[in-house]
Amino acid sequence: MLTDFGQVDTYVGVMHGVLWTYAKRLRAVVDLTHEVPAQEVTIASFHLDAAFRWFPPGTVHVAVVDPGVGSGRAILAARIGEHFFLAPDNGLLARLLDGAADREVVAVDVERVGLATCSATFHGRDVFSPAAALLVDGQAVSDLGRPVLDWSRAAAPSPERVSDKPESYRGEVVSVDRFGNLITNLPGSLLGDEHREWELEIAGQCLPVAGTYADVARGQALALVDSYGLLEAAVRNGDAARALGAGRGVPALLRRRT
Amino acid sequence: MLTDFGQVDTYVGVMHGVLWTYAKRLRAVVDLTHEVPAQEVTIASFHLDAAFRWFPPGTVHVAVVDPGVGSGRAILAARIGEHFFLAPDNGLLARLLDGAADREVVAVDVERVGLATCSATFHGRDVFSPAAALLVDGQAVSDLGRPVLDWSRAAAPSPERVSDKPESYRGEVVSVDRFGNLITNLPGSLLGDEHREWELEIAGQCLPVAGTYADVARGQALALVDSYGLLEAAVRNGDAARALGAGRGVPALLRRRT
Amino acid sequence: MLTDFGQVDTYVGVMHGVLWTYAKRLRAVVDLTHEVPAQEVTIASFHLDAAFRWFPPGTVHVAVVDPGVGSGRAILAARIGEHFFLAPDNGLLARLLDGAADREVVAVDVERVGLATCSATFHGRDVFSPAAALLVDGQAVSDLGRPVLDWSRAAAPSPERVSDKPESYRGEVVSVDRFGNLITNLPGSLLGDEHREWELEIAGQCLPVAGTYADVARGQALALVDSYGLLEAAVRNGDAARALGAGRGVPALLRRRT
Repeated sequence: MLTDFGQVDTYVGVMHGVLWTYAKRLRAVVDLTHEVPAQEVTIASFHLDAAFRWFPPGTVHVAVVDPGVGSGRAILAARIGEHFFLAPDNGLLARLLDGAADREVVAVDVERVGLATCSATFHGRDVFSPAAALLVDGQAVSDLGRPVLDWSRAAAPSPERVSDKPESYRGEVVSVDRFGNLITNLPGSLLGDEHREWELEIAGQCLPVAGTYADVARGQALALVDSYGLLEAAVRNGDAARALGAGRGVPALLRRRT
Repeated sequence: MLTDFGQVDTYVGVMHGVLWTYAKRLRAVVDLTHEVPAQEVTIASFHLDAAFRWFPPGTVHVAVVDPGVGSGRAILAARIGEHFFLAPDNGLLARLLDGAADREVVAVDVERVGLATCSATFHGRDVFSPAAALLVDGQAVSDLGRPVLDWSRAAAPSPERVSDKPESYRGEVVSVDRFGNLITNLPGSLLGDEHREWELEIAGQCLPVAGTYADVARGQALALVDSYGLLEAAVRNGDAARALGAGRGVPALLRRRT
Repeated sequence: MLTDFGQVDTYVGVMHGVLWTYAKRLRAVVDLTHEVPAQEVTIASFHLDAAFRWFPPGTVHVAVVDPGVGSGRAILAARIGEHFFLAPDNGLLARLLDGAADREVVAVDVERVGLATCSATFHGRDVFSPAAALLVDGQAVSDLGRPVLDWSRAAAPSPERVSDKPESYRGEVVSVDRFGNLITNLPGSLLGDEHREWELEIAGQCLPVAGTYADVARGQALALVDSYGLLEAAVRNGDAARALGAGRGVPALLRRRT
C-alpha cells in the first residue's frame, strides 16, 4: 500500500480494516509509504516503480494518490507479469504499464466492485480496498471492469543526452531521502563498466563517481549508483542535501571525465 | 490499536510483541493511528467511533490514551455487537457504549489479567496487550473482570439546533486531516435529501454544500459530507485549514439557504 | 525490525517485501521503530536491549543502523537464548552479547547469504532481509557464516557510584520519549526496597522518587522507575523535558536522602 494519506489520520488503518474484512486469503498488508507529499503523483510513481519488484509474485500493489477523487477519473486495475496493481488513472502507473510486455489493464467497474455505501471522497476505503480484496482472493483482473488500451501519462522528467564530447547527460534530483541523499533520475547503467571515468555536476560542485561510500573520506561528497540503480549524490556519514544546499528538481549533469 | 504513543519510541512495537507472544489465534495487528495528540481522549474517541465498523467482526480494538495511568482508574473491556474493545475508563468509550443496544462491559481485573511484572507506567504493555490476547483467543469479556453499569463520560462537544428560520445548527471543527480538510461534528444526515439547500458558515466564510470536490473549481472552498459521514470544509486540490485560517475548535454553522 | 530509515522513504517497506518473498514460515513483521536518529548506534542499542524480551521465543530481531555500510564492517548473526539477532558489527549488539550466557555469534557470509544483485548502499534489503528469512525458516545461526569470538564495543555511557555518604550514583539522560519523559541510564534496582529514601537531582532540580505518577499532584515533577526498569524524570500529565529544560546527555544524580 502506497498513499499520500500520512499516518496521523486513520485513513490508512481503515483501509487495512476493509482489506482484512473482505480478503479471505490475505497474508499481510505492507505499508510501502504513506508520506508521499499530498497529491504528488510523480513521486508516488517513482517509489512504486522502484519498489514493486521486491515483493513476492501475486502481490497486489494499491497506490492511492488521487487528486481527482470525486471527478470522473477511472480507477485502473492491472496485471504486469505476476504482480497486480490498483491506482487512479492519473499517470501513476504510466511508466510501469508502458514498459511492460505482459500486461492486462481494465477500468474498474466502481458500481459493481465498490462498497454499497461508497463515499465521494474516500475511494481508498470504498473502492480500492474491496477491489484489492478481490484480486487477493484470486479474481482475474478482467473480472473487475472493462479492458482499456490507453491511460493517462505522467509528467515525469526524463534524463537526456546533451553532449557527445565529452559524453554528457542531464537529469535532475527526483527524491531526497531521510539521510539527505540526492537521488537523480540518471540510471546507473549509463556508466558502463567503469564508474571512475565519470563525474557528476550538481549544485555547482563536481563530484567523483565512486563505487561505495567508503571510497571517500568521512564528510566528503561523492556520487554513486544507489540501491534504486540510479545516480545519487551523497556525503559519507553526512547529509548531501544540507551540504550542497540542493533538493528535488535541482539539475544534475553526468559527464565523462576528460 | 489506537494510542497517543507515537512511533518514534518503541512502546507500540513492544505492545505488538506482547500480542504476538500471548495471542495464539492472532491474524494481524493493525495500527489505526498512534499520533493522537498526547492525552487527548476526545480525539481518540472521535477516531475510534468512526473507524471500528470498518474492521471485521471479532476484531479486538485496543485504545490507550491514558492520562490516568498509575491512578485508580479502571480499564474497561467491552463487547458491542461482534466487536471487542479495551480502553481506560476515561470517557474514550462513552459514546460507543451509550449508543449500543447489544453490549457487555466489565472492569478488567488487573491482578489476574495483567503481566506478573506489571509496571506503574505502561499498562499498554502490561495489561491492555495481555487482556487483548485473551479476547483474541476467545475468552469472554465476562471472564476478564466484574460487570460495570456506568462509566466516565467524555467532554465531547455536541452540535445543537440554534434556529428554526432559517433552520440552523451550530457545531465545531473536531479534526483537521493531513490534507487540511476541516471535519466538523455536524452529521451529514441533517441535510436530508438535498445538499444544495444548505450552506456552511465557518471562519467568516459562507461555503456552498456540494456533493463532491469536483462540483467546484480547483482552489475553491466548499463543504461536503465526507467519508466520516460528517460535514467537512475543504478546498478542491487545496488546504482548507490554511486557506480559511481555521483549526480544531473553530465554530461551524450549518444553515438552510433562504 | 529496528532501523534509522524513517518511514517517509520506502526502504522499510521494501525490506518487508523481501522478507515476505523469501521467508516461508513468516508470521508477522513488527516495526519496533524506524525513527532512530540517523546513524545513532547507541540509541538503537538502548531500544533493542529494552524491547527484545517482549517478543516471543524464536523472534528474529533485525537492527539496521549502519553508518559503515559499504566499508568492510561485518554483519553479525547471533542467537541469545531463544532469540535471534542480525545487526552490523558496530557495537549495536555489544551489551546484549556481553551480558549473555547462552549465545552463538557468527559473521554473516555476505556472498552466500546476500541477494545476487547486492548493492553497495542498502544491505538492509540485500543482506539483512534474506539472512533474516533464513533464520525465520529455521536455519541455524552457524549456517550463516563463520563463528566470531569478539565484536565492536559501543561507547554507551555507564552510570557510576560517585559517593558513599550519602550513597550517590551519577548517570545521564539516554532517551526522551514523546511525552517528554527523561529516561536515564540509572537502573531502578539501585533503589532497593524503598523508593522514598531516594531523590534524583537533574537540571538543577531535586525530584522526589515516587512509586507512580499519581503519587504527586498534576503538573508536579517526580522521578520514578519506568517501564524500562530505569529511573525517569517526569511531570504528571505534563512534559518534563520542556518543564526542566533538559534533554539527552543531561547528567542525573541519584542520591539517598539524608
